[in-house]
Amino acid sequence: MTVEPLTDYSRLCVHTITTKGWEIEEAIDCYKEAGVSGITVWRQWLEGHNPDKVGDRIRSAGLKIVSLCRGGFYPAIKEAARAEAIDDNRRAIEQAAALGAPLVVLVCGADPGQSLVESRKQIISGIAANLPLAESLGIKLAIEPLHPMYANDRSAINTLASANDICDELNHPLVGITYDVYHLWWDPALEAETIRAAKANRLFAYHVCDWLTPTTDLLNDRGLMGEGCIELQRIRGLVEAAGFKGMIEVEIFSDRWWKQSTDKFLESIKHSYLNYT
Amino acid sequence: MTVEPLTDYSRLCVHTITTKGWEIEEAIDCYKEAGVSGITVWRQWLEGHNPDKVGDRIRSAGLKIVSLCRGGFYPAIKEAARAEAIDDNRRAIEQAAALGAPLVVLVCGADPGQSLVESRKQIISGIAANLPLAESLGIKLAIEPLHPMYANDRSAINTLASANDICDELNHPLVGITYDVYHLWWDPALEAETIRAAKANRLFAYHVCDWLTPTTDLLNDRGLMGEGCIELQRIRGLVEAAGFKGMIEVEIFSDRWWKQSTDKFLESIKHSYLNYT
Repeated sequence: MTVEPLTDYSRLCVHTITTKGWEIEEAIDCYKEAGVSGITVWRQWLEGHNPDKVGDRIRSAGLKIVSLCRGGFYPAIKEAARAEAIDDNRRAIEQAAALGAPLVVLVCGADPGQSLVESRKQIISGIAANLPLAESLGIKLAIEPLHPMYANDRSAINTLASANDICDELNHPLVGITYDVYHLWWDPALEAETIRAAKANRLFAYHVCDWLTPTTDLLNDRGLMGEGCIELQRIRGLVEAAGFKGMIEVEIFSDRWWKQSTDKFLESIKHSYLNYT
Repeated sequence: MTVEPLTDYSRLCVHTITTKGWEIEEAIDCYKEAGVSGITVWRQWLEGHNPDKVGDRIRSAGLKIVSLCRGGFYPAIKEAARAEAIDDNRRAIEQAAALGAPLVVLVCGADPGQSLVESRKQIISGIAANLPLAESLGIKLAIEPLHPMYANDRSAINTLASANDICDELNHPLVGITYDVYHLWWDPALEAETIRAAKANRLFAYHVCDWLTPTTDLLNDRGLMGEGCIELQRIRGLVEAAGFKGMIEVEIFSDRWWKQSTDKFLESIKHSYLNYT
């Protein structure tokens, strides 16, 4: 399979958490100046801000608002906690609409005190409870299957097959998948499940970074594209052959990179984007 | 599904790495005194020892020799390194025969510089190269699918489905699976793939420990059974319903437990074995 090289930044989107050193205004200005085309806003970056105004500022800068990150975390043993999660996801959907983001990324959650089967049921009923509001505001909900090393407390949805199964069950055009190479690269079923997702029109978002050897922290030791072992071009080839032509979102949690200058990090991201993604 | 409680230690096996503070002689004596029934010997514990003699000593203590841990690590970009891995596995098979262990556990390996598909091919050809010796000595080779967080450099076989596929391809009665709950617990396909493995008579070994929340280290932060979120009794129910009646091997890598007294750790293992396994 051949994949077209990336020769410009027209599909490059950066997550505000990637450039953690910048508040929202600085991120917008710096992304614009660097020629980045899109932004995915993490909800922490909206605290103390009016999302309408942030949306206006992003649009004025000529950036595309790709996603709001993140909702989810539906499962909980206690019913009150599950109800609170559904409420919080309502707020996320409303924030996305106010911001002008078409999509909320769902990190679905898990509760280590109950079975994964039970957590998956609660995820389905939680998303179903949020669908009427998502429909009325026209916001997509994109389930992000998370790496199995997060199955204990971050997500009970740990493979693309499992995300496809949940989407089948919910069977709604606004429910789809956030496809993150960090979580999915190892899966022998990746090609087949990518085709399955694409055929059902549910490849909503595409996230990139890299897997380091060694990985010293389960959460904040992700690599810049090209630093690790993920076959980024092969996987982009898979999703593009299946029909995905959307933005390529750089989402890197890295204590190592976060210690560096954020300007320099963004320059490195641009270089890695063209050469290794 | 109901699972019979464990009421004695007749199926309890401990890995020498679990009781890392003890040399081989001390491990044998202490396991015997504690009423442990079986031992899986890690190869480091044989360094400087004659494996025949160690085997005699274990048998004299009345312990069952369950496995030799571990061979594998077949993939490498360089051909010379692959040839060396095959040689090293020959030595492991010979050691197992001398010790009197019926089985070598295979942590199959991966090279982050090449694709997982390539690493899987090299695993298959490596095992095939070792099969004649395994046949002549009557030693089983048990592929251990490793958690996907080890796909970069420890194993390109990361699900029970993938291990079943490799076993299908090798199609040999001496090639089977080491089933470790730590690596497999999260998999939605676990029940179906357990039945598939059992039907093919390839459930050769069963390892237990637990998954902690949080997990602070990818390698050496495993929990004692009952400390984490793995549904140990449900999974034992799956393998037993599928026909597995073999030893239950406690394999715990834990810097936290290794700092404690080894005597006390073994007592805790016995308690957790009866109550949470």
